[in-house]
Amino acid sequence: MSSGRSRAAARAMSRASALILLLLSTAVFAQTDPLPSWNDGATKTRIVDFVSAVTKQGGKGFVSPAERIAVFDNDGTLWSEQPMYFQLAFALDRVKALAPQHPEWKTTEPFRSVLAGDMAGVAAGGEKAVAEIVAASHAGTTSEEFEQIVADWIATAKHPKFKRRYDELVYQPMLELLEYLRANGFKTYIVSGGGIEFMRAFAERVYGIPPEQVIGSSIRTEYQVRDGTPVIARLPEIDFIDDKAGKPVGIHKFIGRRPIVAFGNSDGDFEMLEWTTSGAGRRLGAIVHHTDAEREFAYDRESHIGRLVRGLDAAAGRGWVVIDMKQDWKRVYPAAR
Amino acid sequence: MSSGRSRAAARAMSRASALILLLLSTAVFAQTDPLPSWNDGATKTRIVDFVSAVTKQGGKGFVSPAERIAVFDNDGTLWSEQPMYFQLAFALDRVKALAPQHPEWKTTEPFRSVLAGDMAGVAAGGEKAVAEIVAASHAGTTSEEFEQIVADWIATAKHPKFKRRYDELVYQPMLELLEYLRANGFKTYIVSGGGIEFMRAFAERVYGIPPEQVIGSSIRTEYQVRDGTPVIARLPEIDFIDDKAGKPVGIHKFIGRRPIVAFGNSDGDFEMLEWTTSGAGRRLGAIVHHTDAEREFAYDRESHIGRLVRGLDAAAGRGWVVIDMKQDWKRVYPAAR
Repeated sequence: MSSGRSRAAARAMSRASALILLLLSTAVFAQTDPLPSWNDGATKTRIVDFVSAVTKQGGKGFVSPAERIAVFDNDGTLWSEQPMYFQLAFALDRVKALAPQHPEWKTTEPFRSVLAGDMAGVAAGGEKAVAEIVAASHAGTTSEEFEQIVADWIATAKHPKFKRRYDELVYQPMLELLEYLRANGFKTYIVSGGGIEFMRAFAERVYGIPPEQVIGSSIRTEYQVRDGTPVIARLPEIDFIDDKAGKPVGIHKFIGRRPIVAFGNSDGDFEMLEWTTSGAGRRLGAIVHHTDAEREFAYDRESHIGRLVRGLDAAAGRGWVVIDMKQDWKRVYPAAR
Repeated sequence: MSSGRSRAAARAMSRASALILLLLSTAVFAQTDPLPSWNDGATKTRIVDFVSAVTKQGGKGFVSPAERIAVFDNDGTLWSEQPMYFQLAFALDRVKALAPQHPEWKTTEPFRSVLAGDMAGVAAGGEKAVAEIVAASHAGTTSEEFEQIVADWIATAKHPKFKRRYDELVYQPMLELLEYLRANGFKTYIVSGGGIEFMRAFAERVYGIPPEQVIGSSIRTEYQVRDGTPVIARLPEIDFIDDKAGKPVGIHKFIGRRPIVAFGNSDGDFEMLEWTTSGAGRRLGAIVHHTDAEREFAYDRESHIGRLVRGLDAAAGRGWVVIDMKQDWKRVYPAAR
């Protein structure tokens, strides 16, 4: 081989190598974007910068893995909550399923209204009506029976607008965020006003969050031995409401340390964000703002469900990230299976 | 070298190699015994066999890591509880520390008795006296202040018999067992009648058990914002008693799945062992039986603290291991530091 041909071959090889490297690095970059459903922009940057800072060994923002606790509201933060909390849809369906065993419900409120699909009638009954529906739909079983009832419901019930299973109406960007945080040594928790045993029936499968990391409202339970078989019986009595100022109390009770990350969407999450972000060192507080009437729902200050007033007013002053669902999310729900 | 000398040399080398191998394997065996403070015998064998069975991939006793939940009582199971629960010693010391701010205590029961060291006088006050002592010693601070108070106490207070810090009176064999279980994919939990925030102040450092895996009795707390600073305030009111039938309830509330391993020592642990061992598949229930008056204390059926009657009577029939402290434990406490 002449020296000229050799040099030309070397140049070609070098160019080819550079091209391969470029292709490889693009591929690697694409593969390793941990938040592919988040559009590039200030929101995504703040999340990624925060995680980089607290995980950088030797950096001044470093937080030991044991202290990397991240808490997430569920309704409106990890999955949708319109046109009604999904758990209320479950409760109404449950009342309908039990109706044949309760002929008296046809003429007794609030059950008459539930069975007639008269939501205004249910609402007219106020808190007392809700308490009766919760008792009828959530108590009176063992904990194992209840878990099965929820699992069966979620495997079949469909959302009225999207005609998809409720557990398919989880936010793809938030699933990626949960996974991203866990890959960076965080323990991810749900801290929700929703029922703790309702959520535990699907949280591990859907969110990768095990039951012991689900905190929620609860009814009282009691240990009973029935014909030699121990059970946890669910009683028709409220034990704990994990909402508003109850959220930091629930966090303290169940986790026993202050989180460094909190995501919510309504004013029910205000105290959780406040408690989380008022600790020392770097903190991340964020609010999912429902701005996407087309792909999901648009609501905030005027909504009965997921009302958001204090959070919007306080976010800038407190350094909380406001996630604009329409702008910041490339997609809302996972692809249909 | 002659062929004869060569053969002799080879034989010598071979013998030396065998000896080295033997020494090495002994060393390796010694290094890898995960429970060096447990004497060989039926108890140790049952524990090791259980762990082997549930961790053997493909074996019929296999349990997935997510389901490997192990629960431990604290007082009398992980550390001593005589001549009084260590938390009561804390409460009495705390009353003494606060006495200068409460001159009225000199003449008011149960405080008068506490300050006079008159335990019979305290006992005469019954549950009301205990409630007042708990309120005075455990409430009225923020959660962060309380954690510091407990940490300060445990760093200085000494046990009356052993003249060692209370956190040195933990059982070395149980520390090894906790570590052994964690090395085999278990999540280890404390489930104790003791105060949840009292134990959380030292459980991670002493037992390697993080606060979120400590379950105990609790007083009510409240979220408050004081001059712009959020705190968790401790109120003088019982929230939850994590004892007897309360233990399965606490387990269900905090963990949300049934453990496969439970260790206790008194009848307060009966329902926890019953709940744990009545689940499907292989289960391990065990009772620490205090049989060692010389190295620790000997007590069971007649003791006021840590009374053990039902557990001893039921153990054989239910397949629970009874650990004979005197026989089964090579040492009781860790070496002095």
